[in-house]
Amino acid sequence: MAKIGVLLSGCGVYDGAEIHEAVLTLLYLDKAGADILCLAPDMDQLDVLNHLTGQPMAEKRNVLVESARIARGNIQNIRDFTAADLDGIILPGGFGAAKNLSNFAVKGTKAEVHPEVKRLLNEMVQAGKPIGAICIAPATLTKALSGIQPEVTIGDDSKMSSAIEAMGGRHRIATVEEICVDLPHKLVTTPAYMLGPSIKNVAVGIENLVMKVLELASS
Amino acid sequence: MAKIGVLLSGCGVYDGAEIHEAVLTLLYLDKAGADILCLAPDMDQLDVLNHLTGQPMAEKRNVLVESARIARGNIQNIRDFTAADLDGIILPGGFGAAKNLSNFAVKGTKAEVHPEVKRLLNEMVQAGKPIGAICIAPATLTKALSGIQPEVTIGDDSKMSSAIEAMGGRHRIATVEEICVDLPHKLVTTPAYMLGPSIKNVAVGIENLVMKVLELASS
Repeated sequence: MAKIGVLLSGCGVYDGAEIHEAVLTLLYLDKAGADILCLAPDMDQLDVLNHLTGQPMAEKRNVLVESARIARGNIQNIRDFTAADLDGIILPGGFGAAKNLSNFAVKGTKAEVHPEVKRLLNEMVQAGKPIGAICIAPATLTKALSGIQPEVTIGDDSKMSSAIEAMGGRHRIATVEEICVDLPHKLVTTPAYMLGPSIKNVAVGIENLVMKVLELASS
Repeated sequence: MAKIGVLLSGCGVYDGAEIHEAVLTLLYLDKAGADILCLAPDMDQLDVLNHLTGQPMAEKRNVLVESARIARGNIQNIRDFTAADLDGIILPGGFGAAKNLSNFAVKGTKAEVHPEVKRLLNEMVQAGKPIGAICIAPATLTKALSGIQPEVTIGDDSKMSSAIEAMGGRHRIATVEEICVDLPHKLVTTPAYMLGPSIKNVAVGIENLVMKVLELASS
C-alpha cells in the first residue's frame, strides 16, 4: 500500500487550498487503496479573504488549523516528516499553494518557498519518489526544484508559462483533462481550475494525476 | 436541465458543512449535467471549532461567508429563493446542518429549524420537488417536516433513530452505500460519515442519492 502525502495550504481557493481539488485528490487516492497522510505547515496564512465578496478580512488564520477542516482533523505538521515517511506526495492548488507554501502570488519569479516545503520536495526528488502538483502548485514546485529544470504544466496561459521558464522550469501546454509527466524526475502536473471550467472537468485531470503518481510510486 | 440547490451550513465538519460530502454532491450533480445553485443562510455560526484540536475558538464566522469557500464564491442567500427557483435541493451533512440549519446538536428533539430553511423545505414538499439529505442533515429535515412523518435514515445508531422517531419521523437502517427513499414525499437520505469509514464509501452513497434526486426531479 503506497503511502501518499497530501500537502494542504489552508481551506479555500482564494487564501488556502482549493477545496474541490483537495477533496478530489483524497477521493481518488482512497479509491485506489492508497494510505493518505495529510500535511501542512504550521504558520499564519498570508491573508484571509471573504470568499463571498473577495475582500480581505481583518483576522489571522493558521494554515495547519484551517487545512484540518479539509482533512477532518487527521493532519500533521510537515516539519515532522521526511521523504522516508512517504512513497509520494501531492500538492492541490488554490492560492494557498502560491501564498503560503511559497509567496509566488506576491513576489512572482522572485518567490521564496516555505523552507519545510522546499526541504521535503527536494528530499522526494533525491529519493526518486513522485510528486504531483495541481493548478497553480506547479509554480511553487518549479521554484522549489529550479536546479533540476522541472517540466510542468499550468495550462495554457502564456504569462504563467513565461514565469515557469523564468524560474528555471520548462512549461508544457495541457488541457484540463491532461497531465504533464516529467518522467526522469517523477513529477506529475495538471491544470485543474487554472482552466476549469467546472468540477467534473477538474476531476478527470486529478484522477489521471493520482493514478500516475501511484504508478510511479510503485515503479 | 434540472436546477438543484445545494444548501450549505459553513465549511468544516465540526462547525459547518462536511466538506467531502458537499464537494461530492457538487461533483456528481455536475457530472450528471445538473445546474447547481449553492445556498446558505446569512447568520453567525453557532460556534467555531479548531479542527486540529477540537477546541472552541474565540471568534465569530458567518455561515454564508464560510460556505462560499466550498462554493468558490458562487453562492446565494437562501432568503432570496423559493421552491419555484429549484427542481430539487440537497443538504450535505456536517455539524453545521445540526448547529446552524437547526440547533438539533444542542437541543436534540426540541430543536428549532432556521426559519428560512424550514420555509424552503416545506415549500419543496408542497411543490412535489425532491429533497436529498446527507449524514446528520436528515435530523434537521425531519424536524422541519415533522407534520408529514418523513421516512429517513441516519445509518444504524439507535439513539439517533429514537430521536428521529421522537421528532415525528420514521427511521430506517441503511448502510453507507445505501439510500433511503420516502417516495410519496420525494425525500432521499444516506448516512455518509455517520458511518464512513472513509471518503470512497461515502462517495458511493452520495452518488446514489444525487442520481435518485435527479430522477425524482424529472418525474
